[in-house]
Amino acid sequence: MPVISKKGFAMPESPIRKLVPYAEAAEAAGNQVIYLNIGQPDIKTPDVALDAIKNIDREVIEYSHSAGYESYRRGLADYYNKHNIPVSFKDILVTNGGSEAIMFAMMTCFNAEDEVIVPEPFYANYNGFALEAQVILRPITTYIEDSYALPPIEEFRKLIGPRTRGIMICNPGNPTGYLYTDEELETLRELVIEHDLFLFADEVYREFCYDGAKHRSILTLEGLEEHSVVVDSVSKRYSMCGARVGAVISRNKSVMNTALKFAQARLSPPTLGQIASEAALQTPQSYFDEVAAEYVDRRNTLVKGLNAIEGVQCPMPGGAFYAMAKLPVDSSDKFCQWMLEHFTHKNATVMMAPGEGFYASKGLGKQEVRIAYVLEKPLLELAVEVLSEALKVYPGRTEITERQQAEA
Amino acid sequence: MPVISKKGFAMPESPIRKLVPYAEAAEAAGNQVIYLNIGQPDIKTPDVALDAIKNIDREVIEYSHSAGYESYRRGLADYYNKHNIPVSFKDILVTNGGSEAIMFAMMTCFNAEDEVIVPEPFYANYNGFALEAQVILRPITTYIEDSYALPPIEEFRKLIGPRTRGIMICNPGNPTGYLYTDEELETLRELVIEHDLFLFADEVYREFCYDGAKHRSILTLEGLEEHSVVVDSVSKRYSMCGARVGAVISRNKSVMNTALKFAQARLSPPTLGQIASEAALQTPQSYFDEVAAEYVDRRNTLVKGLNAIEGVQCPMPGGAFYAMAKLPVDSSDKFCQWMLEHFTHKNATVMMAPGEGFYASKGLGKQEVRIAYVLEKPLLELAVEVLSEALKVYPGRTEITERQQAEA
Repeated sequence: MPVISKKGFAMPESPIRKLVPYAEAAEAAGNQVIYLNIGQPDIKTPDVALDAIKNIDREVIEYSHSAGYESYRRGLADYYNKHNIPVSFKDILVTNGGSEAIMFAMMTCFNAEDEVIVPEPFYANYNGFALEAQVILRPITTYIEDSYALPPIEEFRKLIGPRTRGIMICNPGNPTGYLYTDEELETLRELVIEHDLFLFADEVYREFCYDGAKHRSILTLEGLEEHSVVVDSVSKRYSMCGARVGAVISRNKSVMNTALKFAQARLSPPTLGQIASEAALQTPQSYFDEVAAEYVDRRNTLVKGLNAIEGVQCPMPGGAFYAMAKLPVDSSDKFCQWMLEHFTHKNATVMMAPGEGFYASKGLGKQEVRIAYVLEKPLLELAVEVLSEALKVYPGRTEITERQQAEA
Repeated sequence: MPVISKKGFAMPESPIRKLVPYAEAAEAAGNQVIYLNIGQPDIKTPDVALDAIKNIDREVIEYSHSAGYESYRRGLADYYNKHNIPVSFKDILVTNGGSEAIMFAMMTCFNAEDEVIVPEPFYANYNGFALEAQVILRPITTYIEDSYALPPIEEFRKLIGPRTRGIMICNPGNPTGYLYTDEELETLRELVIEHDLFLFADEVYREFCYDGAKHRSILTLEGLEEHSVVVDSVSKRYSMCGARVGAVISRNKSVMNTALKFAQARLSPPTLGQIASEAALQTPQSYFDEVAAEYVDRRNTLVKGLNAIEGVQCPMPGGAFYAMAKLPVDSSDKFCQWMLEHFTHKNATVMMAPGEGFYASKGLGKQEVRIAYVLEKPLLELAVEVLSEALKVYPGRTEITERQQAEA
């Protein structure tokens, strides 16, 4: 019997999905599972997008151009231009979701064993993509105590060696919700020019910036026209994760010509998803305003609730719809599994993503969890209550609570 | 300015699409271009699939399971079972088209520098996928004189070395239309067991078998349960290339568990495409019968027409909707470009795919072209006429025609 590849063995399991069997068992036992482990929002897809699908007027669902429909690429360019991001449709290649955009960008820009610096915690699937493209991710640790702000530039310089070819950020960040400041982006700009690196930015959460903050794309950083590669997606923006429509965006012509060769090999991004995505460009601003207001409300509910639990720490995220929280537990991996296997409160339990999967440095993230605030406020309130009760009785608790002290 | 990767440089341009600029120029000059270069059929997508899209009843276009919707996978298993292919839904992973299925299969089964034997000419994009997965394709040449039948087993044995890990076929074949015989499949079975190899079969054209021939899937070959990996797709079957829905199918549990890890990293195959694909499973047999009859008619028109041209050789394909033809020209690359740049007849020219891109052995395919008979009969008749006239005057013609002899 032939054996599978080394790459296949090494490929990480999704840390976000690996607890699924325990959640299924909890549901089968009649409990309510509150799913805060995955970034699948409950927000409605805009009507303009759904209507475009319902009114589809085609007899053949054909391939599109390998780079995506030109009309959609032109519409996307208009969208960016409206947000003062200077790109033309020729700088845009449409992909099978942000995932394929990351793969194309990595394969286009990096050789086997090239090193890319990534602030950790980072989106866990970067590990899988890096393995597929044989790129080495060099983590630069950010800390919950600093709300996951970038470390000083000196820390970056320590990591830059002869094989360093790029820096990759996610802004606003998954899993931290951290929104980069202009100063931080300028720091990155300086480093990138100094060492002639590629700067990748995963900007799929660009519409999710709160408290009046404005998102700044790396495509607006002067002098980085040849260095910047942006990954985008309609998944979160229009709550249509299943459309599988993303994009690679760069003004570097070699990058775009090369990415197109990878795109040609797989023929075409999804036609139906593109039809929905092109229509979604007509989504009114009121949709985004309502969604942002809803997420701010959810975020505030969650973060306030979490910080009110003794021993729990949760910085206020500036964007996206995730929060990282530090819990008084021996291992968030064990704790998350224990919650699903052994704990209910009001017949409910909570599913969260253990923190370790978001770090490349071994041993980090052991007390952290990522919580996606993608459900309605009453469910988030219940989730906080369940978590609070669970921490009172979890056997692996690391700090003594007042109640436990009183009982002792 | 940072430079792109070696892989990016090495990535081949699509031989099928590289003549596009010349075709665009020909159209801009007011000529009709008959596109026989690409497998985009003009056949209607089944109504059941289009209706499912038009009647979509969802408020959120969500991710599906990373392996695809279970209901769709169960439906697909029923489809295979109906065709006496014994698989369960657990043996099926839904992908972004057949392209991603090939990538997942390659990354799952082969290490860098592993060798896979592929009968040539083969689907040109296998080159790109092999490069991405760092797999070495070892071609075994098949010949137009034999209608592209497999060479004797001894020829395979000569190619098998310490790094040989697999054999990959496309059945019925793109670009040859060749349909493997039971004897050939048994030969492959013997080799695969003898050397403990993976056997990949791209069976996306399985519904396109003509003249009463039955397609035989490698999944029906006894003793190959752990060795066989099939790539499938809805693209051609239901003429919905733009749905981007394919599948990896294997009864090897390690293969499927590993492929799932690659699938989890990219989250989900397209939701809308899967809705259309699941509905398409209800396509009545009459659709396939009508389509097959139409293709047989087109094939006969094309092949008869081609063989009537002096100096042209075109074996009768048993399946798919491609024919390879050998032309009396110095270079089919040059000839195809010359057609688009310099030749019209009745104000029309023809775009074909030059043969070299379908071979891995250097120098082969120089006189061959792939012709996709995906257009209606009158257009194919015109195309044959245009080609016939073009060959009379092409400066790089290698054989002297009777007319030229008479004129000389």
